[in-house]
Amino acid sequence: IRQGFPEAVYAEGKTLEQTSDALAALVAAHGCALATRVNAEAGEMLMQRFPTGSYDGVSRLYRIGRMSGDFKALTVAVVCAGTSDVPVAEEAAQTLEFAGVSVRRITDVGVAGLHRLLARLDDVRAASLVIAVAGMEGALPSVLGGLVAAPVIAVPTSVGYGANLQGVAALLGMLNSCASGLSVVNIDNGFGAAMAAIRMLNVMVKA
Amino acid sequence: IRQGFPEAVYAEGKTLEQTSDALAALVAAHGCALATRVNAEAGEMLMQRFPTGSYDGVSRLYRIGRMSGDFKALTVAVVCAGTSDVPVAEEAAQTLEFAGVSVRRITDVGVAGLHRLLARLDDVRAASLVIAVAGMEGALPSVLGGLVAAPVIAVPTSVGYGANLQGVAALLGMLNSCASGLSVVNIDNGFGAAMAAIRMLNVMVKA
Amino acid sequence: IRQGFPEAVYAEGKTLEQTSDALAALVAAHGCALATRVNAEAGEMLMQRFPTGSYDGVSRLYRIGRMSGDFKALTVAVVCAGTSDVPVAEEAAQTLEFAGVSVRRITDVGVAGLHRLLARLDDVRAASLVIAVAGMEGALPSVLGGLVAAPVIAVPTSVGYGANLQGVAALLGMLNSCASGLSVVNIDNGFGAAMAAIRMLNVMVKA
Amino acid sequence: IRQGFPEAVYAEGKTLEQTSDALAALVAAHGCALATRVNAEAGEMLMQRFPTGSYDGVSRLYRIGRMSGDFKALTVAVVCAGTSDVPVAEEAAQTLEFAGVSVRRITDVGVAGLHRLLARLDDVRAASLVIAVAGMEGALPSVLGGLVAAPVIAVPTSVGYGANLQGVAALLGMLNSCASGLSVVNIDNGFGAAMAAIRMLNVMVKA
Amino acid sequence: IRQGFPEAVYAEGKTLEQTSDALAALVAAHGCALATRVNAEAGEMLMQRFPTGSYDGVSRLYRIGRMSGDFKALTVAVVCAGTSDVPVAEEAAQTLEFAGVSVRRITDVGVAGLHRLLARLDDVRAASLVIAVAGMEGALPSVLGGLVAAPVIAVPTSVGYGANLQGVAALLGMLNSCASGLSVVNIDNGFGAAMAAIRMLNVMVKA
Amino acid sequence: IRQGFPEAVYAEGKTLEQTSDALAALVAAHGCALATRVNAEAGEMLMQRFPTGSYDGVSRLYRIGRMSGDFKALTVAVVCAGTSDVPVAEEAAQTLEFAGVSVRRITDVGVAGLHRLLARLDDVRAASLVIAVAGMEGALPSVLGGLVAAPVIAVPTSVGYGANLQGVAALLGMLNSCASGLSVVNIDNGFGAAMAAIRMLNVMVKA
Amino acid sequence: IRQGFPEAVYAEGKTLEQTSDALAALVAAHGCALATRVNAEAGEMLMQRFPTGSYDGVSRLYRIGRMSGDFKALTVAVVCAGTSDVPVAEEAAQTLEFAGVSVRRITDVGVAGLHRLLARLDDVRAASLVIAVAGMEGALPSVLGGLVAAPVIAVPTSVGYGANLQGVAALLGMLNSCASGLSVVNIDNGFGAAMAAIRMLNVMVKA
Amino acid sequence: IRQGFPEAVYAEGKTLEQTSDALAALVAAHGCALATRVNAEAGEMLMQRFPTGSYDGVSRLYRIGRMSGDFKALTVAVVCAGTSDVPVAEEAAQTLEFAGVSVRRITDVGVAGLHRLLARLDDVRAASLVIAVAGMEGALPSVLGGLVAAPVIAVPTSVGYGANLQGVAALLGMLNSCASGLSVVNIDNGFGAAMAAIRMLNVMVKA
Ligand SMILES: Nc1ncnc2c1ncn2[C@@H]1O[C@H](COP(=O)(O)O)[C@@H](O)[C@H]1O
Ligand SMILES: Nc1ncnc2c1ncn2[C@@H]1O[C@H](COP(=O)(O)O)[C@@H](O)[C@H]1O
Ligand SMILES: Nc1ncnc2c1ncn2[C@@H]1O[C@H](COP(=O)(O)O)[C@@H](O)[C@H]1O
Ligand SMILES: Nc1ncnc2c1ncn2[C@@H]1O[C@H](COP(=O)(O)O)[C@@H](O)[C@H]1O
Ligand SMILES: [Mg+2]
Ligand SMILES: [Mg+2]
Ligand SMILES: [Mg+2]
Ligand SMILES: [Mg+2]
Ligand SMILES: [Mg+2]
Ligand SMILES: [Mg+2]
Ligand SMILES: [Mg+2]
Ligand SMILES: [Mg+2]
Repeated sequence: IRQGFPEAVYAEGKTLEQTSDALAALVAAHGCALATRVNAEAGEMLMQRFPTGSYDGVSRLYRIGRMSGDFKALTVAVVCAGTSDVPVAEEAAQTLEFAGVSVRRITDVGVAGLHRLLARLDDVRAASLVIAVAGMEGALPSVLGGLVAAPVIAVPTSVGYGANLQGVAALLGMLNSCASGLSVVNIDNGFGAAMAAIRMLNVMVKA
Repeated sequence: IRQGFPEAVYAEGKTLEQTSDALAALVAAHGCALATRVNAEAGEMLMQRFPTGSYDGVSRLYRIGRMSGDFKALTVAVVCAGTSDVPVAEEAAQTLEFAGVSVRRITDVGVAGLHRLLARLDDVRAASLVIAVAGMEGALPSVLGGLVAAPVIAVPTSVGYGANLQGVAALLGMLNSCASGLSVVNIDNGFGAAMAAIRMLNVMVKA
Repeated sequence: IRQGFPEAVYAEGKTLEQTSDALAALVAAHGCALATRVNAEAGEMLMQRFPTGSYDGVSRLYRIGRMSGDFKALTVAVVCAGTSDVPVAEEAAQTLEFAGVSVRRITDVGVAGLHRLLARLDDVRAASLVIAVAGMEGALPSVLGGLVAAPVIAVPTSVGYGANLQGVAALLGMLNSCASGLSVVNIDNGFGAAMAAIRMLNVMVKA
Repeated sequence: IRQGFPEAVYAEGKTLEQTSDALAALVAAHGCALATRVNAEAGEMLMQRFPTGSYDGVSRLYRIGRMSGDFKALTVAVVCAGTSDVPVAEEAAQTLEFAGVSVRRITDVGVAGLHRLLARLDDVRAASLVIAVAGMEGALPSVLGGLVAAPVIAVPTSVGYGANLQGVAALLGMLNSCASGLSVVNIDNGFGAAMAAIRMLNVMVKA
Repeated sequence: IRQGFPEAVYAEGKTLEQTSDALAALVAAHGCALATRVNAEAGEMLMQRFPTGSYDGVSRLYRIGRMSGDFKALTVAVVCAGTSDVPVAEEAAQTLEFAGVSVRRITDVGVAGLHRLLARLDDVRAASLVIAVAGMEGALPSVLGGLVAAPVIAVPTSVGYGANLQGVAALLGMLNSCASGLSVVNIDNGFGAAMAAIRMLNVMVKA
Repeated sequence: IRQGFPEAVYAEGKTLEQTSDALAALVAAHGCALATRVNAEAGEMLMQRFPTGSYDGVSRLYRIGRMSGDFKALTVAVVCAGTSDVPVAEEAAQTLEFAGVSVRRITDVGVAGLHRLLARLDDVRAASLVIAVAGMEGALPSVLGGLVAAPVIAVPTSVGYGANLQGVAALLGMLNSCASGLSVVNIDNGFGAAMAAIRMLNVMVKA
Repeated sequence: IRQGFPEAVYAEGKTLEQTSDALAALVAAHGCALATRVNAEAGEMLMQRFPTGSYDGVSRLYRIGRMSGDFKALTVAVVCAGTSDVPVAEEAAQTLEFAGVSVRRITDVGVAGLHRLLARLDDVRAASLVIAVAGMEGALPSVLGGLVAAPVIAVPTSVGYGANLQGVAALLGMLNSCASGLSVVNIDNGFGAAMAAIRMLNVMVKA
Repeated sequence: IRQGFPEAVYAEGKTLEQTSDALAALVAAHGCALATRVNAEAGEMLMQRFPTGSYDGVSRLYRIGRMSGDFKALTVAVVCAGTSDVPVAEEAAQTLEFAGVSVRRITDVGVAGLHRLLARLDDVRAASLVIAVAGMEGALPSVLGGLVAAPVIAVPTSVGYGANLQGVAALLGMLNSCASGLSVVNIDNGFGAAMAAIRMLNVMVKA
């Protein structure tokens, strides 16, 4: 089942040793591996055990090698509303790149500045799939869903405060979108959005 | 304090007699009166007691006379996302009209059909104030807030199902808007939005 | 944008006349139309105005004609956990069929009877896409997500009582799935799941 | 659209560099700039890069220059219930002052000490607009709404503990006020209240 | 333990027979009895079995006889915010009267009309205990708590809509009051407030 | 109004200087003062400014002098369920003692060890008022309410984890008690419970 | 796996035909069958199709035959707090009896009337297992858990109003019990409690 | 009552001294004792006072001696979904071992990797009781409940993020399981699950 999918270690709440061993096992089996939610300190330590790996402080991903996926000319647009949403967007984008997928990043196009979004619309429409990342009221996927025919995977983020309820407001917004056919993943789950995209891309390349 | 404001009877949960007596008292004092949340049956009965009044089944307002307010050329745009939001929008619009305010209605411009909204933008911008009514994810005020400089009063509606949580999703969306300077009233509270507008208009005409 | 998509009228909270007029407009423009959440009484009335249409009491869909979509040999598996989830599953399945998509129905395979699910696994795996419908604890998509590589669109239903919180328990379960790459739509939103599937199928047939 | 509005950088969750660069861009474009939610340490660092700026530890605002707004003799009353609400009130007040608006501060007039509130009523009534800031049960705007005819923008704060649910209790109180025509912003959102006020003042000065 | 307390039957969810038998048992034991939450139809039927009893459609209480309590000159003020809160206030007031307590009713003194409340302040201050009943934002007890030294028992009601969350908004407001020393009972629990008052009065008459 | 009541400073979220100044003002006016929620470090600093004061690390109260209240022989029983609830119980007990009230402490009598509670019942019954403090499921006040005729003020605490929802479970339990006539204060609000008791005692000594 | 367990049809939300067919299939396979949540009307209709069956209006169970289980002398005590909880308790009790288990019913022993509970303690202690059913604050299982060493299965009910949140208050109370070793089922889930008991009894009779 | 049960000290929120004294008292009375939720630092200190004890950093249990329970050949399977759930599983397992019960650990068998679970099924079925520990969507007990006839005690954990709501998602999932007869304990309550198991085992060994 799992061919075509990145195997990833979720580092949050694991000891460095547990993460490290899990990565080693994945490298042994697949020649490459990915860890998510790796903090800066752990990132540095992993560099010592896996010197060929690389750590990115924004996405908090640790990557060793990359997969040999071939997704032809299919591109995924990773669109995000504000600069505070970038870490989640990068978790999605870099997971996709690890899997061999081409990514188009479009940032800072929140719905309150509609002209910025419309200015980038051609870029969004050129993609086969859209991952739309937004916090606060999470309206970006709704607007995008009305503008593009491609699948839109909506990722709510915990960005905001007060009545954002740590991302629940954005999550509810996306689930209730008046644009039909959005699908939604967990709050801050950039990795899950990338995985949902890869499930789709795998079918597309076969189709 | 109250000059310039419509006095209204909230009919929900009142007996017909209570509503009727409260209306009579208001008419005696002010020469005009308004009741909100009047169901069809009660509307018919009130017609018998106050034959000069009128009942509107969509807004569920019963109106007797109207106020002599003079709001010059100031117009309020009442914008709504879907046809199911119309009852709430009409509660706002007709309360404003009762108070002597000019209303511009713009309906069915939900954010998933952005072109319809953009087509009506000049109308929205011509108004001194905007009341934006939306259910489901409640994104309309966010988009409008970025497009107009006027005050935007956001009214969440209970339209939708499931994770809309009877309007809480739209309410949270509006409170967390990435467009600054929106202000929000209770779910389905078209009357309250009109009252907030009248508070502002009263200052504007004096300014 | 909209070519390839069913245009649908959401009948809940609309008067018969509003639904009927909206359907007539769609038929005029596209030659076919769909209404969702149509109750039995409204269904009968619509049969009089649109005698070529058909009403299905389980899915509560009213359909007039069908779209000319060509999705080649692509099949969608609509899998559901219990018989009480069937109305939601049928809303998804029949929306897909209206759009010209082949559907494979697999019912009554809740995770507490794992053998029944495993017995149908070949059927599920034969599909390009899976729509997994479940209420109560909503565990079916998690189990399926681990068994198939295809995209899985998870639909929580409001089936259950007490701590199911009208479907919120199933929704949360699906959003937190330990199977990566699921994506989720609103509670009871079979129509939305079908729309998400059609977005994907449209890309697949072009790929 | 944006003339007349302060452009602000929301510093929370941004690196010092991101905040600093965003401020520099605003200064280049408008000659002045504002950052909100700046902690003490970041405030000190910004003083080095923008020596003409000033940092206020209570409101957590960093201001460079000020806008050339002319709001005639219009005054905004910023009223707050307790001393713990002052930081939020100051975020509102100083944002208004940055935009060129005259502010009248009225503090420590919570509803449990009604005489203190009534003693200041003339000051409140002299203003064109009222921003009412309160935590705990958030009753201040309700009482004020009955005492003044001007627009009242209600700001719930997260002040309190236990069943205050981090400000949700105050938010709900304000949304359900029995005083009609209040409008509400997000919890602790002093900046948003100031922006809503500026939207209104902009119309007033034009009227 | 129970001397001095009314024994009451909670009729909601009971069959007429169960309520009737429970009342008969209480009458047999104590010579008097009370049932709460009795609907109109059940009230009529109980009149047939207990012809000396009386049913009140507002409070929904059915009373047979009354207790021989002697609470000297102690009076309880039952204060309520709006006319829709009267049924809950009457459940409290009439339970007290059944127990032999003098009640002073003060209605329609919601905090948005402060002058009406202040006009009745002497009446409130003359009482030994205050029961304050309010829905929507539930601010009345906070204001009263600052104005009187007597114990204030706060009763939230479910009156309102939308973000009132069926009375939870009023409940939270009362629990977070900035007036110290309020104590709170369940939503719509006029009976419980009366019982809490009777506990206090029992001690007072002994003191 | 305020004679007979302790004036207290709520130190949480105040700077040391603010707390200290507020205490000084109270001492100047009343000759005594109380601060609540004072952490250890602030307690030490206050000792330097007010050397006649005393700090208690368990209740987190800082007391200067005490009130000259005379509550005759009236005693309040402060009953608590577990040792982790003691800080909240002490906040209540020591606030009462500051006001001149006699307190009887009864600890570690949670309902799961009923024999321990029954063994202390005479002590509880000897009191004029009961303050019942409990976390987790908060059942103690229900059981006590059935055993004593005196007023029972229920204080939920945030003690527990998981589904205790930081004290909301205990709060809800107390509000829904099947023992009639309990009244409830905010989570962890020992001070408020003491204030509610003092309101009652003030009436009792006058009666 | 399933030997020793009652197979039951959950009739809520099923058509009469669906329930009836499902029952017929169970009877064919096992010679006996059970349906839960059967309303009065459906109960009558089922009597016509399955004349050897019996319908109980309190538990809403329809039973055909009974299982041949042999649970020796093991008895389950079904204890319930108030008369309104009886329907849930009976769902548990009669499901157990259908499976061949001896049941001891103990009703109306809510914790506010502790003497009634203590009077029945010998009966409770004589049982091998306890099912404790309670609404409102749901404290009964906590008290029982401290008094008996046997397994206690706690069943929260939706009995109550206001802050009971349709049974969530009782559920949370039971999950946070200070009596260790309780286990909890869904709100109003008497059937599930019986099933949990049967799982235990099956092991006991084998042990 | 308590014979056969481990007496445990809940160390969270206790001072070292309180924990230490409570342990000493238990050792004096029973010759053995257990403390739960002991952090690493406290664990080290306790080693000095009770040198015969042992601290385990994963389960956070401190154990002194062990009970002399005789549970014959009865085994409890402690099954857990992911490695992050191990601390909770170990709290259960080691509490059982302290009480003299044989434990079979089965880890990393989450439902998204069904083959791993099925591979261990014989081990699970060999046990008299199952404790199933899972976070995120908490689906493991549902699947197990369909596969084994033994009692299943479900333990939700707070593992996850975002819409897991600190374990509430897993808790709700388990309460709504479509597998009948599961019973559930509080989030992260491994100790409570062990206690529930011991209640059952005590009856089994007597049966
Ligand atoms: N639909 C409505 N929503 C909120 N408040 C309303 C509504 N209609 C009337 N009101 C207000 O409710 C108050 C009248 O309440 P009542 O005295 O109960 O009729 C007045 O202050 C009105 O301004
Ligand atoms: N059952 C449904 N759930 C969610 N959205 C729907 C449903 N049925 C139709 N829609 C969408 O709702 C919109 C139509 O809304 P309306 O104009 O109110 O009929 C269209 O965008 C449809 O795609
Ligand atoms: N409206 C009410 N709200 C809360 N408790 C009530 C109410 N009416 C009666 N009770 C209490 O409910 C119990 C009677 O319950 P029951 O035995 O079911 O009639 C008594 O303890 C009453 O004091
Ligand atoms: N981790 C735990 N979770 C829940 N209850 C516990 C835990 N550890 C100990 N207990 C119970 O808490 C009580 C001890 O509380 P305490 O007297 O505060 O130490 C005993 O009844 C124990 O059975
Ligand atoms: Mg957004
Ligand atoms: Mg909308
Ligand atoms: Mg399911
Ligand atoms: Mg306040
Ligand atoms: Mg009120
Ligand atoms: Mg307790
Ligand atoms: Mg109970
Ligand atoms: Mg799981």
